Amino acid sequence: MDETHTISVLVQNKFGVLARVAGLFSGRGYNISSLTVNKTQNPTISRMTIVTTGDERVLEQIDKQLNKLIDVIKVTDLTGRQFLERELALIKVKAPCDKRAEIVQIAELFQGNIVSVHKDELGIEVHGRAEKLDNLLDLLSDYGLIEVARSGRVAISREAGSTENLEDI
Amino acid sequence: MDETHTISVLVQNKFGVLARVAGLFSGRGYNISSLTVNKTQNPTISRMTIVTTGDERVLEQIDKQLNKLIDVIKVTDLTGRQFLERELALIKVKAPCDKRAEIVQIAELFQGNIVSVHKDELGIEVHGRAEKLDNLLDLLSDYGLIEVARSGRVAISREAGSTENLEDI
Repeated sequence: MDETHTISVLVQNKFGVLARVAGLFSGRGYNISSLTVNKTQNPTISRMTIVTTGDERVLEQIDKQLNKLIDVIKVTDLTGRQFLERELALIKVKAPCDKRAEIVQIAELFQGNIVSVHKDELGIEVHGRAEKLDNLLDLLSDYGLIEVARSGRVAISREAGSTENLEDI
Repeated sequence: MDETHTISVLVQNKFGVLARVAGLFSGRGYNISSLTVNKTQNPTISRMTIVTTGDERVLEQIDKQLNKLIDVIKVTDLTGRQFLERELALIKVKAPCDKRAEIVQIAELFQGNIVSVHKDELGIEVHGRAEKLDNLLDLLSDYGLIEVARSGRVAISREAGSTENLEDI
């Protein structure tokens, strides 16, 4: 059965590594729902967090193929483990004067912050699990979404200690 | 002079588009400092936010080459405009009992939340401008960073209205 998987990939921060990883997914027909890449505490190493869908066999293949790529250090499928995942969104929503209080209240209920105010619109910053952001966007879409910028998913294991031991690399 | 630029790229949510964009950057020797891609309010359209460095000529080239790619709808260089940018980080830090209060205080000063507690470590969730996250990580590195998962940068214009008018697409 196809399931959503969150995969954490540590890579050498070398030129072209993102293109190789993205090319592997597209070349083999694997889907990427979201991706985010940034440096880690070690500036020579970056972490990609990739959300993908597939059955067990596909996930095994992804793991195997990623591990074959030069510059890939470690692949961890977080699904099935205890892990924390978060996304961040910046949202501009239509907010005429008579709707402003309602929208501010919705933002507060989702622990969001108002980050910009214009005559007929509000800017909201919010973070949390993807489902929470989906729910908020669903509620706000009744007022009219102007712009949505959403980060890929970031994830980290809930278990004590490092799954990856960057110090050993 | 080389400057950091934050570029927002709207793309058709089609197979392989990330590989094409990443391939364009690596093929032409353009650097990617961070990248994040996720759906927008329109499920057929995704937004990539790419942080890159280069002089004016390089940025012009990036803009031109991206616009040539099939499935690229709109490229906006946010640099020079009024825009909001945010990153999200999940951080595990070494926290023996006698250091815990200090670390919790640092997290609070950065408006971070404690998201996991183990005998000798704490998990912190924080969001804000990249420089803020750099500062926090710098402070926490004195205690020992165990794991850092950091989203790419997300950005949105501060100006009223949409820069991109998804409704017109």
